[in-house]
Amino acid sequence: MAGDLVVLSGGLDSTVCLAMAAAEGGRPPLAVTFDYGQRHRTEVDRAAGIAGFYRAEHLVVALDARPWGGSALTDPSIDVPTGSTGDAAGIPVTYVPARNLVFLSVALAVAEARDLDAVWTGVNAVDYSGYPDCRPEFVDAFRRVGELALKRGVEGRPVEVRTPLIDRTKADIVRAGITLGAPLALTWSCYEGGTTPCGSCDACRLRARGFAEAGVADPALV
Amino acid sequence: MAGDLVVLSGGLDSTVCLAMAAAEGGRPPLAVTFDYGQRHRTEVDRAAGIAGFYRAEHLVVALDARPWGGSALTDPSIDVPTGSTGDAAGIPVTYVPARNLVFLSVALAVAEARDLDAVWTGVNAVDYSGYPDCRPEFVDAFRRVGELALKRGVEGRPVEVRTPLIDRTKADIVRAGITLGAPLALTWSCYEGGTTPCGSCDACRLRARGFAEAGVADPALV
Repeated sequence: MAGDLVVLSGGLDSTVCLAMAAAEGGRPPLAVTFDYGQRHRTEVDRAAGIAGFYRAEHLVVALDARPWGGSALTDPSIDVPTGSTGDAAGIPVTYVPARNLVFLSVALAVAEARDLDAVWTGVNAVDYSGYPDCRPEFVDAFRRVGELALKRGVEGRPVEVRTPLIDRTKADIVRAGITLGAPLALTWSCYEGGTTPCGSCDACRLRARGFAEAGVADPALV
Repeated sequence: MAGDLVVLSGGLDSTVCLAMAAAEGGRPPLAVTFDYGQRHRTEVDRAAGIAGFYRAEHLVVALDARPWGGSALTDPSIDVPTGSTGDAAGIPVTYVPARNLVFLSVALAVAEARDLDAVWTGVNAVDYSGYPDCRPEFVDAFRRVGELALKRGVEGRPVEVRTPLIDRTKADIVRAGITLGAPLALTWSCYEGGTTPCGSCDACRLRARGFAEAGVADPALV
């Protein structure tokens, strides 16, 4: 069966990625969200609403990353920074070790089990937080290991890994989302939970700059 | 902190791999076992006993693969074969999509979060079941993507991926385990659960041949 899987965090980028997959595929993709013990449930709940908007099946994969720790996004004892965030290597404390590697690996497993042809991810290496597993060279290496890991690769029909946003600016992503009628009002980018974005964390600031540069108001803030 | 992580299934290969890591490291590694909804709990329980033998911390990672299906090892409606098992591509129905890719990705995440220097896995490409994610080319590609995914890679100190058994015969592995005093009596290879191995599944047959070729009795059968 042909079909698509989209890794959906509930944020802006993954939602626009889902909109692109839905538009190109002509039918609802499978949306996969990870419940990894992040600080708040807001993004998982938002992802469910966004999947519903697209009448997409929504699979929530539980993989509790809290026992291994090491990130401000899973360890409540580490504060989410509100200013400049990078360490010596330019990587913020909100980095979750190997997160995209783990998420994409599980996504490939699900895609193969369900005989889907492509995994889509909204990773972006332009207006991003500096996580190493968002870079194009990571994605290229992941494609290679995915081909070798899967039975489908041995059969000569690897699951494709699609990254339509990787070289887009945040403003481009906002514009693409509006053009495609994506439910941007439902998306959640803030690292903190609650009902209103904090406005000061790295994710909020990147998002605000994207909407400002696109010249449109953020519908999630209305 | 220097230190090692061993992916421990509770089987023969991963136990000998743990024995090697413990011998080389001079202190107990962290043992990580995946509870992925396999047909039976026997291997998770055995892994706990083996970790205990080495006084190793034992982390059980829950990642339920049943919702995505597609394998005789996680889907009770698919029978575990007792004879020749390969399909057209030579891959048996006991193949779990992307299993080693997922397990090694999580292992790298845990290693980085705990600042451990190496991940050890007992993958073997000689006397094995024909899974694509046990081949040396898969492991090489995984090393590459792991370097790119991790903050430690950016910092120039990637987590090493050790595969000391990859080109060994099962008989060699049995001999190595005996030499190192590994608790082979505690290991469980059978795809079925219960208290006694079935003796007829692919894993039982590979194990029996290994002990026979090494010229020793299997202590798990005594």
